[in-house]
Amino acid sequence: MTKPLEPLTEDYFDPACPSSVMPIRIGEKWGGMVIVLLEDGPRRFSELKRPMRNVTSKVLTETLRALERDGMVTRTAYAEVPPRVEYELTELGRTLLAPIQACRDWAAANLPSLLQAREAWNA
Amino acid sequence: MTKPLEPLTEDYFDPACPSSVMPIRIGEKWGGMVIVLLEDGPRRFSELKRPMRNVTSKVLTETLRALERDGMVTRTAYAEVPPRVEYELTELGRTLLAPIQACRDWAAANLPSLLQAREAWNA
Repeated sequence: MTKPLEPLTEDYFDPACPSSVMPIRIGEKWGGMVIVLLEDGPRRFSELKRPMRNVTSKVLTETLRALERDGMVTRTAYAEVPPRVEYELTELGRTLLAPIQACRDWAAANLPSLLQAREAWNA
Repeated sequence: MTKPLEPLTEDYFDPACPSSVMPIRIGEKWGGMVIVLLEDGPRRFSELKRPMRNVTSKVLTETLRALERDGMVTRTAYAEVPPRVEYELTELGRTLLAPIQACRDWAAANLPSLLQAREAWNA
């Protein structure tokens, strides 16, 4: 048996993160979050939804479908009762982790400076 | 006297680049292009506009203003006849070159696989 994955909590992404000012985005708003959340292994829909606090089920479904279409994520339905569906990164999806990490590193180092510049501009 | 910069030509960005399918974007559509175009040194508005073939003057103006507001770009007006205005990367703007490069490297290596997956999905 493999070790169970760490649960994805509601505060997985920093609730104070001013992501709306982020000059770097990965795809549309939610795709990058899903990629990051799948890094450690396959997850169910409800597991993914928890840390993506503001996402609706409709939008998360569309996001996963777009990632599936682009070969980034696979969807596997297990014939169980109750039915179980899991989403997992493909090898191609895994290649996105590097540029995403570069963007997150940038944000950690430089987002405060951006916010400071914007405040000064508005003043 | 400093060496003049290489001119920015219309085909600076690959005209065949399927950038609309790119899962990674830098900020809104044009901001990342401006950062890249300013890498080697200051440029005028008309120089920037040339390689950004589909951008309108209005949108390029807004893009430059947003980058200025966020502390990424400075705008310098020289009291000359005819008047000359130049845009230049700040130190903060320069920090964006690394994550942008990571995204461009990703695209060069993996965009064909994404397109192949999408074609297979549509078929």
